[in-house]
Amino acid sequence: MFVKKLVGTDLHRLSVEDFKTAQKWPFAVVLDNVRSMNNVGSVMRTCDAFLCDTLYLCGITATPPHRDITKTAIGAENSVRWIYSESTIESIIALKSRGFIVYAIEQTSTSVMLQSVRFNDQPVAFVFGNEIDGVAAEVIHACDGVIEIPQLGTKHSFNIAVSCGMLLWEYARTRV
Amino acid sequence: MFVKKLVGTDLHRLSVEDFKTAQKWPFAVVLDNVRSMNNVGSVMRTCDAFLCDTLYLCGITATPPHRDITKTAIGAENSVRWIYSESTIESIIALKSRGFIVYAIEQTSTSVMLQSVRFNDQPVAFVFGNEIDGVAAEVIHACDGVIEIPQLGTKHSFNIAVSCGMLLWEYARTRV
Repeated sequence: MFVKKLVGTDLHRLSVEDFKTAQKWPFAVVLDNVRSMNNVGSVMRTCDAFLCDTLYLCGITATPPHRDITKTAIGAENSVRWIYSESTIESIIALKSRGFIVYAIEQTSTSVMLQSVRFNDQPVAFVFGNEIDGVAAEVIHACDGVIEIPQLGTKHSFNIAVSCGMLLWEYARTRV
Repeated sequence: MFVKKLVGTDLHRLSVEDFKTAQKWPFAVVLDNVRSMNNVGSVMRTCDAFLCDTLYLCGITATPPHRDITKTAIGAENSVRWIYSESTIESIIALKSRGFIVYAIEQTSTSVMLQSVRFNDQPVAFVFGNEIDGVAAEVIHACDGVIEIPQLGTKHSFNIAVSCGMLLWEYARTRV
């Protein structure tokens, strides 16, 4: 098989300036007390790829500029619109008032499995939690529902940047 | 919304011992000269969740035991079956001889977009490349096809552990 790898301008990516004015997709990502800046940067890179409306960085979640965020965001910290809020719940209330349906990504007694979720045109927000403690119980209670990514192996959870990738791909796959 | 977070035995995960003898899903992951041990460990954690048949660690890709792999694999380095090979191409040849169809994950002139790929029961392998250089051209040529994850923003690529998560979720979503 002979193929040409696409690099640089062949990829037809947006400039940071064009990204800022581009029509976004109606989804938001909320990070509830995420500890690792590596994860924050990686989430930003994925949010950039799918034209995220707004990324909410809440509680102890670090904000740009920071070299450990840049290390994995690789510039996406300059394109993606982000807001810092000390309170995750206030961010969720703000999103609901903007018409977003808000899902926590967690493993609970009432989760809907990701493969069963159908997204429509209503704006939607995805809340990801701390690396150890997950999404806080009171934050889950503030959400409209819980989505769970099924796991069949030995580990209890996915890396948060990876689970964000899976969620956003499930959201994006019928839109691209 | 009142829900119970599931933890510990409520999650009904496999023990490492049970994982080793469990029927695996017929897919393999190949890492072609991946530099970051953080990424290797994170890929292992995702492979564990979806019962990966075999993970091939090739070229400069580091192998367990290493604390920087354990940091993100968090034990999945003990469950997932992995093989080291100096040569990515030899791994691909071995997979083909076992009946696997092998896809590079890259951006090329002839890529099939991920949302258009349909997986059947034939064993399938996914080759992910180096963080900077991607999958080597000669490795792409040894594959049966190329899958691309569409991106609409400013960045040229996804983090490799995140792109592995998206691929494996697309593979898993109709099986779980």
